[in-house]
Amino acid sequence: MNDVPATLLERTRAAIVPPDESVAAVTQHVLDFKTKPRGSLGRLEGLACRLAAMQGVAKPQLPTKAVVVMGADHGVAAEGVSAYPSEVTRQMLLNFAAGGAAINVLARQAGARLVVIDMGVLEPLPEACGVRAERVGAGTQSFVREPAMTEARALAALAVGIGVADELVDDGVGLIGLGEMGIGNTTSATALVAAFTGAAPDTITGRGTGIDDAGWLRKVDVVRRALALHGLALGAERSAPADPLRVLACLGGYEIAGLAGVALGAAARRVPVLLDGFISTAAGLVAARLAPLAAGYFVAAHRSVEVGHRVALEALGLRPLLDLDMRLGEGTGAALAMGIVDAALAILHDMATFESAGVADTGR
Amino acid sequence: MNDVPATLLERTRAAIVPPDESVAAVTQHVLDFKTKPRGSLGRLEGLACRLAAMQGVAKPQLPTKAVVVMGADHGVAAEGVSAYPSEVTRQMLLNFAAGGAAINVLARQAGARLVVIDMGVLEPLPEACGVRAERVGAGTQSFVREPAMTEARALAALAVGIGVADELVDDGVGLIGLGEMGIGNTTSATALVAAFTGAAPDTITGRGTGIDDAGWLRKVDVVRRALALHGLALGAERSAPADPLRVLACLGGYEIAGLAGVALGAAARRVPVLLDGFISTAAGLVAARLAPLAAGYFVAAHRSVEVGHRVALEALGLRPLLDLDMRLGEGTGAALAMGIVDAALAILHDMATFESAGVADTGR
Repeated sequence: MNDVPATLLERTRAAIVPPDESVAAVTQHVLDFKTKPRGSLGRLEGLACRLAAMQGVAKPQLPTKAVVVMGADHGVAAEGVSAYPSEVTRQMLLNFAAGGAAINVLARQAGARLVVIDMGVLEPLPEACGVRAERVGAGTQSFVREPAMTEARALAALAVGIGVADELVDDGVGLIGLGEMGIGNTTSATALVAAFTGAAPDTITGRGTGIDDAGWLRKVDVVRRALALHGLALGAERSAPADPLRVLACLGGYEIAGLAGVALGAAARRVPVLLDGFISTAAGLVAARLAPLAAGYFVAAHRSVEVGHRVALEALGLRPLLDLDMRLGEGTGAALAMGIVDAALAILHDMATFESAGVADTGR
Repeated sequence: MNDVPATLLERTRAAIVPPDESVAAVTQHVLDFKTKPRGSLGRLEGLACRLAAMQGVAKPQLPTKAVVVMGADHGVAAEGVSAYPSEVTRQMLLNFAAGGAAINVLARQAGARLVVIDMGVLEPLPEACGVRAERVGAGTQSFVREPAMTEARALAALAVGIGVADELVDDGVGLIGLGEMGIGNTTSATALVAAFTGAAPDTITGRGTGIDDAGWLRKVDVVRRALALHGLALGAERSAPADPLRVLACLGGYEIAGLAGVALGAAARRVPVLLDGFISTAAGLVAARLAPLAAGYFVAAHRSVEVGHRVALEALGLRPLLDLDMRLGEGTGAALAMGIVDAALAILHDMATFESAGVADTGR
């Protein structure tokens, strides 16, 4: 066990306080005097109140935004669970660095800074390529054969994420979107969600980047065998809830562990976290199992078409803002939802009150 | 009958051509070579293709945007169908002009120009107040007692809208959102949607700005009696589909007729129209009944909580982009969805291809 990351994790967990609901009530009161029927802006109002509670400020400013995209390779990709070869992880990280991927376009559109981090692709990227190297290893092991990583590596990856969140918040960032890239990582996310929620693998296994029927059957089988191997299968004798760090080490990926760390680090600083698709939501679930209060700082950006995403969101008690049949990951849904967050806060700041605008208020 | 507006309406209807589906196919082909699994950006891809088909250009530019908000008063408001008094229509138009309403905030956020037009509030607004006067009358008649307006006035209001759309398009606007303000106008929209779709009034009557149970029962009763009075009730002997201009004149409002005109004018210029909530979608339905091809240029921005909205959207064959429990109108949903439109087109323009980025493409 690496002692420093373990201490950092403990300190971070201990620093997380619940969002302040009394502040949310003040924010709703402010909204109720704006020139519109009470509650008529629906989830924009609810979102403004949530952000206020998280930050403990009734009128939070429009935040400086960042999307953190972490990439890593997965040993399980060798089991034939993905439509793409592992080299694509590395190629796509270089594409992110060059500015040509969907997340580049959508982060620019949202006015968000993009931070791309290599958490452990198979082959290291060239130096000074624009991707930050925080490599925990050169890809994980295939978790259907052995644990994906040691608990020490899981802790190291969590520590990287906590550190990244801290840096961003120190630098003025007030909203962090989670993004990922890793061929094979929907299989890892499926296994994690199955282990944490008890959902049957075939009910939460999706097509990922686009596998065929045979690939889908292999993927379900891989998840089932992995859960059995690590003693995490539904119906297995579990006297106590599974140790989340062990589950993460057995079934996770370096990028998933890193993003769970980002989520914990942001929550400890009272900064809202925009979960993206299935994989980043699985990372959020890891964070919430490690520190349940962290979930109070999560906002679900969108619902992906990946079937397990719905289960993961429900386990976190989150309703997504957008539902646009997307299934790309990279943080694309998180970036797209940032416009909704900005709109919610702009309403809170810039709308007139009934009194200031001379509009009759019936109090409805 | 006013001859000039009738001629303008005829000319506009005749000018509407169907969106070019062959162009949409080219756009999808372009998207399929971008660095992402095929179709993984879901409705962003579909939206880019729709916009391309409408404009007849495979890679449409990010459009200059406008929201047209039309306001008018409704005689039917005197029947106790709204939580707010009619004065609020005028007060809110002044609030729009002063910049303090939700639509001001969200249009600014979207980078859209806001055009506020008085189509016929009860008392004229002060000159040079920032609201453009195109008054067709001083509020409509109560349509439960007589037609809301003459067919000549319905035509005049349609002509105003067509003219506004033409001006905006001449001025470089390439995306028009529809917004409205008019105390009593959900009752008018409900009656129109019932008449055009055959839906039973109690299944599509909502709470508008927030009426109580007694008000809701009055509203349903008003709509039922109005449909009977004008021979438009479900089950009434109708040998032919109802004449849409007559339906509009019997049950509409000046702002609804004006917005139907904007929708027709935009469609004739191949400019996409973002429908907002229940009332602007009812205006879209009027336009589509007057000229069925116009619906090819509509994009549904969001689904409001107003129950009739779903029926109106289905009648137009539209699936909304957003579903955020909003029920404010004013064009707020349309403005919010403009960010999604921009994102869809930015993806089309700015993403790298597999080849240019050196990423392996499996063709999935």
